[in-house]
Amino acid sequence: MASGKSVAIVGATGAVGLEFLTCLERRNFPVGRLRLLASARSVGKTLTFRGESLPVEELKPESFKDVEIGLFSAGAAISREYAPMAVKAGVTVVDNSSAFRMDPEVPLVVPEINPEDIRHHKGIIANPNCSTIIALVPVYAIHRRNPVRRMIVATYQAASGAGAKAMEELRVQAADVLAGKPAVKKVFRHQIAFNLFSHNSKIAENGYNEEENKMVKETWKIFHDVTVKISATCVRVPVFRAHSEAIWIECERPVEEAQVREWLTGAPGLRVVDDREGNTFPMPIDASGEEDVLVGRIRRDYSRDDGRGISLFVAGDQLLKGAALNAVQIAEILVNGAVAPNRASTGVVRLPFSPDTAVLPR
Amino acid sequence: MASGKSVAIVGATGAVGLEFLTCLERRNFPVGRLRLLASARSVGKTLTFRGESLPVEELKPESFKDVEIGLFSAGAAISREYAPMAVKAGVTVVDNSSAFRMDPEVPLVVPEINPEDIRHHKGIIANPNCSTIIALVPVYAIHRRNPVRRMIVATYQAASGAGAKAMEELRVQAADVLAGKPAVKKVFRHQIAFNLFSHNSKIAENGYNEEENKMVKETWKIFHDVTVKISATCVRVPVFRAHSEAIWIECERPVEEAQVREWLTGAPGLRVVDDREGNTFPMPIDASGEEDVLVGRIRRDYSRDDGRGISLFVAGDQLLKGAALNAVQIAEILVNGAVAPNRASTGVVRLPFSPDTAVLPR
Repeated sequence: MASGKSVAIVGATGAVGLEFLTCLERRNFPVGRLRLLASARSVGKTLTFRGESLPVEELKPESFKDVEIGLFSAGAAISREYAPMAVKAGVTVVDNSSAFRMDPEVPLVVPEINPEDIRHHKGIIANPNCSTIIALVPVYAIHRRNPVRRMIVATYQAASGAGAKAMEELRVQAADVLAGKPAVKKVFRHQIAFNLFSHNSKIAENGYNEEENKMVKETWKIFHDVTVKISATCVRVPVFRAHSEAIWIECERPVEEAQVREWLTGAPGLRVVDDREGNTFPMPIDASGEEDVLVGRIRRDYSRDDGRGISLFVAGDQLLKGAALNAVQIAEILVNGAVAPNRASTGVVRLPFSPDTAVLPR
Repeated sequence: MASGKSVAIVGATGAVGLEFLTCLERRNFPVGRLRLLASARSVGKTLTFRGESLPVEELKPESFKDVEIGLFSAGAAISREYAPMAVKAGVTVVDNSSAFRMDPEVPLVVPEINPEDIRHHKGIIANPNCSTIIALVPVYAIHRRNPVRRMIVATYQAASGAGAKAMEELRVQAADVLAGKPAVKKVFRHQIAFNLFSHNSKIAENGYNEEENKMVKETWKIFHDVTVKISATCVRVPVFRAHSEAIWIECERPVEEAQVREWLTGAPGLRVVDDREGNTFPMPIDASGEEDVLVGRIRRDYSRDDGRGISLFVAGDQLLKGAALNAVQIAEILVNGAVAPNRASTGVVRLPFSPDTAVLPR
């Protein structure tokens, strides 16, 4: 233990924070010391890591002394305030919030896609938005062989994306509705139990909500390609912790279904679940607790005549690959210097993305 | 009452059957006599219509004596067996099953779209599939002004589409899951509570399930246009009785968002719910019990450069506009001879669709 890294988790008691602990333990991350940081009201709680009970400490400017790696998931405001302090104290921050994702100095990384971008970091590496990660792991397996020119995405997003309280709200509302009582709304503006609604983020001027616009801009930055055309409809569904997505992609050249199946089967971070006979495809309950993103319903998009369209259905754990796991994978690369196979073979180290080219369509 | 029509409901105790009763009563349909027909095991039950308790009778070949209008919703096998007998007995059948939808002798009708097709009937008029109806009411409001050339649809389909037992399965499973017990699966192969899955219909050779292929072929028949390109992903979600759908359409010519909003606002059978400020858009709990299809998230599809793309989100009651209401509206046209305004103004009476041109893409 003493030879491991000194790690701090910021937002340790949140839904993602708890998964940081699980991921570090399960993946045998070389943790020397672990500090659990949260707001003052969590002080007094303890969390278990490798059988040891650790106290939750209050997050303060001086919390980062002797910390090497900081895993942040306490919202954008906390990240904006504390991540620069942590960097000044010598910490390398992997930030799960949206605070720095579009910062040209900050790499935005999915380890299966652009691990080499990590090399450009100046103290902070950003974790992409959950629905973006879960879509891009499978889409990139195609994109790297036959560039994706257009992408249509409809999401089926779990309550977990809005935190532990939203998961609890789904549970309480479902029990109340079953008992014939009205659904009490606290976290979400609309009833989540036995209902669904357009994603609970603000609608931008272009008519798309923030979640949808994130998918556009983050894909551009992760793919290093601002020419990919994307339209997404993001929807919250009454599911606890895994996001599903229906995806239609249009490639640069004609693409065969069998070829796509082969690419997806061999790609890191993916598991193909495509049993037509048994009518079994990716489902959120199967993706929950899984590190891999599940991908299936692989079929030609017959609404295109030119053979350039493919349709997929995916499901991935929002708290794992959509958040904590992806961040821990980034931390693993920081520690090992290892870069996932996909792009390393090209030997290309691209410059960090400039947001000047990332103007949203309107 | 005596001056009204003699109506029989086949499948009266099913989820759609019960809604037939509601629709006939609420819309003040001129019912003279009402016969409630179902399988032998429902005999002994009574149902209330206009405050009167009516017995459920066993469906038999001789059940149709003196019946003028038959509303069928007891599955394709029952329709195939009994609808021709009913027609022989002089009944005009409105059939909610898939049995006759692709029959070139049978009009497939959404009253807001192709009411004039009713004139060609030879005893049977087919009600389209629920997800097709709910998508096409809004899409047609655009299509009639600026032809839709391509359509991408991701559905969020309620349990009700699989019948009353499926709705009960959602209820029972949800209670069991909340109590920490395993979900017992009877109607659906996969858990429906707090989960979702690719639609529970058979996967055809082209990789699309029957529900998705129905949307293609039924749209062609209803629009009288086999050149519309369609790709759908149909998904079952843990919602009781209203279907939602994310739709991307590409028109023949460039189309303005404001223009589309105007067309949708004035169209029959639709209610625009598009409150960006309040983040309120179509939701299944709001659509439940509503006759209108709710439509919102009206915005440009920025994944197209040519301004021909529009994206929508819709929700409609699967048991009402998706089934019983649409059938009762057809029956109203039969009784009144009235034809909805949309297409009547063109004066065109098109020939019934031939299935020879309706070969599915593969």
